[in-house]
Amino acid sequence: MSAAEKPNLPSPLPADIDARKAATSAWHESLRDRICAAFEAIEDEAGDVHAARIGPLAAGRFVRTPWRRPSPDGAEAGGGVTAMMKGRVFEKVGVNVSAVHGRFAPEFAKAIPGADADPRFWASGISLVAHPQSPRVPAVHMNTRFIVTQKAWFGGGSDLTPSLPDAVDSATFHAALKAACDRFDPSWHPRFKAWCDDYFYLPHRKEARGVGGIFFDWLDTGDRDRDAAFARAVGEAFLGVYPGIVRRHFREGWSDDDRRRQLVRRGRYAEFNLLYDRGTQFGLKTDGNVEAILMSLPPLAAWP
Amino acid sequence: MSAAEKPNLPSPLPADIDARKAATSAWHESLRDRICAAFEAIEDEAGDVHAARIGPLAAGRFVRTPWRRPSPDGAEAGGGVTAMMKGRVFEKVGVNVSAVHGRFAPEFAKAIPGADADPRFWASGISLVAHPQSPRVPAVHMNTRFIVTQKAWFGGGSDLTPSLPDAVDSATFHAALKAACDRFDPSWHPRFKAWCDDYFYLPHRKEARGVGGIFFDWLDTGDRDRDAAFARAVGEAFLGVYPGIVRRHFREGWSDDDRRRQLVRRGRYAEFNLLYDRGTQFGLKTDGNVEAILMSLPPLAAWP
Repeated sequence: MSAAEKPNLPSPLPADIDARKAATSAWHESLRDRICAAFEAIEDEAGDVHAARIGPLAAGRFVRTPWRRPSPDGAEAGGGVTAMMKGRVFEKVGVNVSAVHGRFAPEFAKAIPGADADPRFWASGISLVAHPQSPRVPAVHMNTRFIVTQKAWFGGGSDLTPSLPDAVDSATFHAALKAACDRFDPSWHPRFKAWCDDYFYLPHRKEARGVGGIFFDWLDTGDRDRDAAFARAVGEAFLGVYPGIVRRHFREGWSDDDRRRQLVRRGRYAEFNLLYDRGTQFGLKTDGNVEAILMSLPPLAAWP
Repeated sequence: MSAAEKPNLPSPLPADIDARKAATSAWHESLRDRICAAFEAIEDEAGDVHAARIGPLAAGRFVRTPWRRPSPDGAEAGGGVTAMMKGRVFEKVGVNVSAVHGRFAPEFAKAIPGADADPRFWASGISLVAHPQSPRVPAVHMNTRFIVTQKAWFGGGSDLTPSLPDAVDSATFHAALKAACDRFDPSWHPRFKAWCDDYFYLPHRKEARGVGGIFFDWLDTGDRDRDAAFARAVGEAFLGVYPGIVRRHFREGWSDDDRRRQLVRRGRYAEFNLLYDRGTQFGLKTDGNVEAILMSLPPLAAWP
């Protein structure tokens, strides 16, 4: 299934959809809290080993900023919280949670399952992009989301973007996501890994954004508990694997040439997010919070 | 007329269309030569006044790289020449000329005047984006183009993007473009200036890309000599005014905060070009040269 196709999702909305919405949003917030704590612990551990290169920076701390989504008619439309840290390991990392609702614009509704006849939607998600200071520490993205129209489905994934590819990091990252998938369905990892490679691809450059991971959308197997558990497993797999990849490299030095490669790779990251990313398009078309949507953009990027 | 509308152009193709194509392409090349010479002269004049900040750089020189447009069936499809300079006044400046031809993809053809029934096109243009080292020197864009389907029209414009807006620079720039317009039609400058403000606008930021200039498209007044002369006048106005604006500021010092503002402004520039710019979309959809199309992206940009 490619990103361009709109599937016919099988299941009707369950009677307990409101409880499922609330549980999913609460889980996004709790995952955010644990990720922020884990990343702040890395900032503490790192010390000022790279002070000569990046200056004597204090351990970073997340700053949380709540936002409300403006509604054309002044009605409640949801909102979210951005959490942003600028630290000595993480040059810029944003973790957003949001739960928004409203009506899709007619043009947009046509492409969304369950929104043809009734454009109302509810969506909750957690979205993370980390741009490390060190070119030896890979950048990463993770997102899971639950979207409810007259249908309901989960989507998400995680992918790794090293500036200096490292076979052990890639293998470790893919293995963690495979383990999460395999507990649910052994066919999912090959399918969602291929979908990720297909999605995070820059056709104009004929190049991948990074080394991939998994990407999935429109997940509605008919067992809503299991689908929700899978989305949680993806978040847990990310939290289980990425901090170790950071710790593997965060004391290594780097060269000016390594930094130049990183800034170019980040330029490609910005190209992907602005030219192609569906989450960015979704956010900008649904009057999302611009600072939250574009928090994924790199702190510094080069097109030399 | 907004950018979204597709006009009905009045004039049939003239019998001498091939001669007009050749003359326009030749003029694009000659303007490119004069602009490159003017910018290299500025590089020579600047000396190493900013060596303490940017390093002891030699005067920049343009490097020209010809490219051929790949054609699906191996037939001739045109090409162009990128001219790129990385200097001590111009951190990155690209001047592209191209003359390409082929067939629009069906989806794209529908939106193009004169291409509904016959998707063949020919297009020649000159396109320039300059990102100066100094935040006190404004960035600038200039483009003129001649497009031929079963209709033919000119388009183009020029706009100024200061990091630190300066009223004299803005007034000087707008006055030069107004003078160029007024020699043809006194209604054009207000119309093309408003079109520029409308076009170079980031709706998601609710902010302008810069201080504007002029933008025009689908110019077909029925007098093809006059239309071509106007496109040339826009190029001449740019060459007449921008070097003076550079010279007004190129010896001034700047602060770290000035540089930070410049890098953020450049991030917005990248957002505009990747999210909205019609020339970028046109290029990527017609298999243009990626390096040429994205040469407009800033050498370094920040999303802090």
